[in-house]
Amino acid sequence: MANSITVDETTLLSRLNTLGDIGRDSMGVLTRLAASDSDKLGRDQFVAWLKEAGLEVRVDRIGNIFGIWNVESEVAPLMMGSHIDSVINAGIYDGCYGVLSALSVIEAMKSAGVKPDRPVIVAAFTNEEGVRFAPDMMGSLVYAGGMDVDEALATQGIDGTVLEEELDRIGYAGDLEPGAIVPSAFIEAHVEQGPLLEAEGKLMGAVANLQGIFWQKITIKGVANHAGTTPTHLRIDAGLAAAKVITFLRDLVADSDSVATVGTIKFGPNAINVIPDFAEFTVDLRDPSLSTWEHRQAALTDFLEMLEVSDGVTVQTELLARFEPVAFDETIVEMIEEGAAARQLSCQRMTSGAGHDAQMMSRICPTAMIFVPSRNGISHNPLEYTEDASLIAGAQVLLDSACRIVAA
Amino acid sequence: MANSITVDETTLLSRLNTLGDIGRDSMGVLTRLAASDSDKLGRDQFVAWLKEAGLEVRVDRIGNIFGIWNVESEVAPLMMGSHIDSVINAGIYDGCYGVLSALSVIEAMKSAGVKPDRPVIVAAFTNEEGVRFAPDMMGSLVYAGGMDVDEALATQGIDGTVLEEELDRIGYAGDLEPGAIVPSAFIEAHVEQGPLLEAEGKLMGAVANLQGIFWQKITIKGVANHAGTTPTHLRIDAGLAAAKVITFLRDLVADSDSVATVGTIKFGPNAINVIPDFAEFTVDLRDPSLSTWEHRQAALTDFLEMLEVSDGVTVQTELLARFEPVAFDETIVEMIEEGAAARQLSCQRMTSGAGHDAQMMSRICPTAMIFVPSRNGISHNPLEYTEDASLIAGAQVLLDSACRIVAA
Repeated sequence: MANSITVDETTLLSRLNTLGDIGRDSMGVLTRLAASDSDKLGRDQFVAWLKEAGLEVRVDRIGNIFGIWNVESEVAPLMMGSHIDSVINAGIYDGCYGVLSALSVIEAMKSAGVKPDRPVIVAAFTNEEGVRFAPDMMGSLVYAGGMDVDEALATQGIDGTVLEEELDRIGYAGDLEPGAIVPSAFIEAHVEQGPLLEAEGKLMGAVANLQGIFWQKITIKGVANHAGTTPTHLRIDAGLAAAKVITFLRDLVADSDSVATVGTIKFGPNAINVIPDFAEFTVDLRDPSLSTWEHRQAALTDFLEMLEVSDGVTVQTELLARFEPVAFDETIVEMIEEGAAARQLSCQRMTSGAGHDAQMMSRICPTAMIFVPSRNGISHNPLEYTEDASLIAGAQVLLDSACRIVAA
Repeated sequence: MANSITVDETTLLSRLNTLGDIGRDSMGVLTRLAASDSDKLGRDQFVAWLKEAGLEVRVDRIGNIFGIWNVESEVAPLMMGSHIDSVINAGIYDGCYGVLSALSVIEAMKSAGVKPDRPVIVAAFTNEEGVRFAPDMMGSLVYAGGMDVDEALATQGIDGTVLEEELDRIGYAGDLEPGAIVPSAFIEAHVEQGPLLEAEGKLMGAVANLQGIFWQKITIKGVANHAGTTPTHLRIDAGLAAAKVITFLRDLVADSDSVATVGTIKFGPNAINVIPDFAEFTVDLRDPSLSTWEHRQAALTDFLEMLEVSDGVTVQTELLARFEPVAFDETIVEMIEEGAAARQLSCQRMTSGAGHDAQMMSRICPTAMIFVPSRNGISHNPLEYTEDASLIAGAQVLLDSACRIVAA
């Protein structure tokens, strides 16, 4: 009878706007970096809503906030949520949507008199964005046991602060041990941050897996020489070698599910009439299939070795990040698809291109995600926008899925 | 009888070192930017040597210095020389070699009792390097009528100074009108700044022509999007488009006399996980043949237009510099080759890849250049080095050529 319960649309939309107004500067720019003063204000508002909803509030040592509907049960809880920290000059949706829709789901279940067979928890994980403290997805990574909590707390921020001191300062250094509550399932709703749902004209996505993410810094060294007097055959041009890597990567992933991006680059000495002896750039390479993803990485390595021979350059690489592809829980994914179908909401099974807290939580429990469309695929930007109808549809299917999971 | 006269080797080499020690900072770094305090010290030393040699010193309005052996004659003078300003962190040869070898030539002619049929002049042109004030080769460009002297004097430097005020301040704002003395011939000796003579095992080069130089700044605009969530076919990647231009340019000039260099590049927003919406880079394209050089420029233009269609990017170009190829005077080039042969000095006819004052002077009189080898092709660098024997050989052939020209 899930379809008979609905989330409170007005409250959800109003809370998104309220939270989205916390942390704006005098120019209206929204920034709530993890463990900052504005993050504290956002957390305080969230905790106030948790208390209004009659939930028990717990904070763990890494600052993750849990609003617990603490039903007497032997069954491990259902957890839903995301994060409320933001990038610099952010939009209002991103992680906030997953957190606030989960809260709306619990409120709807409570007011409809649902009797869940287990506790139901809304979670807001610390520092998903990783802008101030690296790595990103830190709160959920620590919670899922992928990073030691003391190591994470000792992280130094780009502003020279230490996370532990900052959490303490804003009053969110809790005493719960991260991972102490192991859920039976985790569902995260999130804006897509990509153009696919809009392109397909779908209201939502059932996210079945998450791409592997490989970040590498590549440094190529050549020989600086005069741009006019050095014949082509005597050049060892680090910039040209870098350009070859960029076009190689595009050829490598063309007509496949992989994506490859060279987003940063630097030449040295960077003079108009000097052949570059130095090129440094980053590679972002993703694929949902572990084998394909690893094959692409190997192909890049082979190409770089070949370049050393063909172009006479030397190549150094530094691994910046590597998260293996994640397959979400098939049962929950199907539950999301069926929930959408039952409400005549168009839904597409899809892969997440971005990293999310759900990626970490899938290490410790069955997990899936619901995506709602991002207009023009834009996120991490004030232009980030999802239509109200899509926001409500996603929250509704989250509610329906939660009801099925907690049905005795 | 030219072979009976020789330059004073000791004086020439010693002066190169003396001038090369003027303008060093406390770390030993040599920098004599045009019209700076250290340029003044270099000029003062040069003028002192001119006076010791019994030459009449004239300075024109753009600060070019002339040491004139003022023979009574109706014939237009022979002029030799180069420049004594330097880049930042320079070597000691570059333009100084052409100036000081010309002075040694005049001294050798005088002491050997040569009776020239015309005045003989050593010239040191202002601001050949163009580091502090743009454009480069300014003094000779103004002298040859390619730039208005008042416009050049009004040039603002990278340090906010104005050239006219700086020349006045250092005492080198002369009263001679640039171009007032039109030579009958101009010869410039210079270090090669490239690897060809060394690679060929030659002591010197007879420079028959000079490449056309084309500098362009290219700005490509695409669409910034998430590196994980944007499928390849929906990307408009300004960085990839830039890489395609770089590899295209290399293919364009492969196995030809043209050279193409992309020495500078910048991406925006320059983030590891954002597809670049902006790429800005420079192209340096040179060829000794006017038609080939213009054909290459047109091919680049066509490629950029094609990129707009194929990649969906928008491309803007800005012309930074364009100097047409220069053919030097065949008679003087042959004279240099014959002079080298007469002294059993190995010599190669060649093209200059770099711009030089001789390029400007060729607009107003028959001109050629003598190159001496640069070890490892290095210049504009403390590692710049030419063997003493090559320096002497080049000065000797300059002397022999001068003697033939002024023989009645």
